[in-house]
Amino acid sequence: MPKLVARCITISLDGFSAAKGQAHDAPFGKDGLRLMEWAFATRYFANMTGQEGGAEGLDNDFLVHSFDNIGATIMGRNMFGPQRGAWPNEDWKGWWGPNPPYHHPVFVLSHHKHSSFEMEGGTSFSFVNDGIESALKQAFAAAKGKDVRIGGGASTVNQYLKAGLVDELHCVLVPMLLGSGERIFEGLDGLADSHEVAEYIPSKTVAHVRIVKKAK
Amino acid sequence: MPKLVARCITISLDGFSAAKGQAHDAPFGKDGLRLMEWAFATRYFANMTGQEGGAEGLDNDFLVHSFDNIGATIMGRNMFGPQRGAWPNEDWKGWWGPNPPYHHPVFVLSHHKHSSFEMEGGTSFSFVNDGIESALKQAFAAAKGKDVRIGGGASTVNQYLKAGLVDELHCVLVPMLLGSGERIFEGLDGLADSHEVAEYIPSKTVAHVRIVKKAK
Repeated sequence: MPKLVARCITISLDGFSAAKGQAHDAPFGKDGLRLMEWAFATRYFANMTGQEGGAEGLDNDFLVHSFDNIGATIMGRNMFGPQRGAWPNEDWKGWWGPNPPYHHPVFVLSHHKHSSFEMEGGTSFSFVNDGIESALKQAFAAAKGKDVRIGGGASTVNQYLKAGLVDELHCVLVPMLLGSGERIFEGLDGLADSHEVAEYIPSKTVAHVRIVKKAK
Repeated sequence: MPKLVARCITISLDGFSAAKGQAHDAPFGKDGLRLMEWAFATRYFANMTGQEGGAEGLDNDFLVHSFDNIGATIMGRNMFGPQRGAWPNEDWKGWWGPNPPYHHPVFVLSHHKHSSFEMEGGTSFSFVNDGIESALKQAFAAAKGKDVRIGGGASTVNQYLKAGLVDELHCVLVPMLLGSGERIFEGLDGLADSHEVAEYIPSKTVAHVRIVKKAK
């Protein structure tokens, strides 16, 4: 059975996955981009951005394998862009340049209509206005038997967890304080009954923890 | 300068330091005692409870050294006992048996009056009714130049953090889900400005993170 997974979801020591104040030049909120320093240091990230070098090792491995067997991605509109409310126009094509790192269909959750479009390298963006379950259905269809990944952000992961739809969640615990922001783990009283920790793998810089649905 | 420190403050993957439903037989709330399994497995805990064995290593070292240079402890009344509201009587002497592991003066925050008393091994319990700053003042006086430790629970640590009074906080991140409960890191918007991570030391079972006040 294809699964719904979330991977490399970064969480600060105080429990936040993004700071407040997202903007064009601050995709993780004000001063929030430092949350991703563990990723920026990797060879994976260097390759993706056309740079030399970057570190190999555990953190790099998790990033490299985060796309394994993924046939479609779902993301919240805040992960797609900094706009809020109705789309002012359709000029914005995401944060990732002309060749986004997805290379498969991406479904963006939004209350506001927006045309679908295609980018280089096989990535397409479609916009889903009728809720997370509809997006999941469309994503599973597009993934053609492969798994579907929730890209983020925090609120989208939280919504799918609340709905009990997430089969597997890989968190990256970063020893850093954000002070405030958005939480993945909020209002999930039943999560300890439905899910359990399957893996705890600390690297030198962060701790990787994977939770999975309990076997019934 | 003597410092106010909190050590071995355990936090679940979802950010909770105690579950809901604290009771006489559940000091960490319903099903919450498993949060402390990392500590129960150590030689330190085995010694403390008169058992053989227990693991040495990083986790044990942190526990052994958690009392270093501590001259007094402050705790919330929920850490002292499961009672709520006015004290029904003064029979309850804490969770720790006749010889508590403190061996110094302990100050319990409570809105309700209670007599002071002494236990074996140099531990005394006094009850402070006029707030956290008064308790801190009394504890520093009693500590005679040594540091003061906040024992817990979550709410007490949170209150001292909010007041900007904590010099050093050692957290133990446990890869485990609680679902709900009490958070240390809640309503602390300015914490990332005042404090920073000084140490990240993962063991095989948990990740130790120490935050300190930033130098001015």
